[in-house]
Amino acid sequence: MRILGIDPGTSVTGFGIIEGGPKPRALDYGAIRTTPGIGEAERLVKIHSQVRHLIEAQSPDVLAVEQVFFNKNTRSALAVGQARGVVLLAAAQAGIPVHEFTPLEVKLAVTGHGRADKQQVGYMIRMLLGLKAVPRPDDVADALAVALTCLQTISTRRRWQTALEQEVPG
Amino acid sequence: MRILGIDPGTSVTGFGIIEGGPKPRALDYGAIRTTPGIGEAERLVKIHSQVRHLIEAQSPDVLAVEQVFFNKNTRSALAVGQARGVVLLAAAQAGIPVHEFTPLEVKLAVTGHGRADKQQVGYMIRMLLGLKAVPRPDDVADALAVALTCLQTISTRRRWQTALEQEVPG
Repeated sequence: MRILGIDPGTSVTGFGIIEGGPKPRALDYGAIRTTPGIGEAERLVKIHSQVRHLIEAQSPDVLAVEQVFFNKNTRSALAVGQARGVVLLAAAQAGIPVHEFTPLEVKLAVTGHGRADKQQVGYMIRMLLGLKAVPRPDDVADALAVALTCLQTISTRRRWQTALEQEVPG
Repeated sequence: MRILGIDPGTSVTGFGIIEGGPKPRALDYGAIRTTPGIGEAERLVKIHSQVRHLIEAQSPDVLAVEQVFFNKNTRSALAVGQARGVVLLAAAQAGIPVHEFTPLEVKLAVTGHGRADKQQVGYMIRMLLGLKAVPRPDDVADALAVALTCLQTISTRRRWQTALEQEVPG
């Protein structure tokens, strides 16, 4: 099971590809960066084409993204929406299902408690994936975090399914 | 000069293609509709592919959209952002420039005053394009309105340029 986690944003879109197994490992992670100078639509072209490229190069089974909530700033909600839109499009065009997780689900899955801060999430990402350092910027750590959450959710579901099947009297 | 106006939205994306000339005319207009049942990412695929199809079929020179502002509802800002993102992407992928106009600019261009309501905008769209009825839903009228605003802005700019060039002593 291979999962591409994405944290979309207009200037920085974090990505992380992880592979399941006895110990999950990171195959690739980093940031897609765009500068305002190239114009809004061209920035979206770059994000879209790089996500498509990642999907083609790594053949993930699932794309995982966080559900986003905004309190006040509708301007940034619109901008994140635009970046998120082209990411979801890239997944659907490649026929890959998209799984969404709330920030609470991600914190719970990665650190075990729902009020963890950025630093604790970063630390756990480093531990769980055996990385030398906490991935920077935060968008990259967040992309790996949502990918790990997705992997854990799917693994748990499978274990439940196996357990339930075994309970059925043969 | 041919302009594709778009009013992006997740469930209804209005579009209108107009052609400049002594009297501007509408070549095509309507709504791209998606239902929640097909999933968020698939809805974006439909919007993106239909906008690409419109661009290929009608070869517009420019794509015009409204700049959007939201007061409170960040959830709808995110959703509109996603739809808007794939529309801007389609334009950039086809190499068409995107022009943006504020709601005030659109009202001023179409009705002559900045506090016009939906009904007045609809009425003027019908008059200016010689349509039998006001296009429905509002998203379609809004798409035609932003296309007309773009046409008017470009025409005005050209007239200024011509006037300025004539003033230069030969």
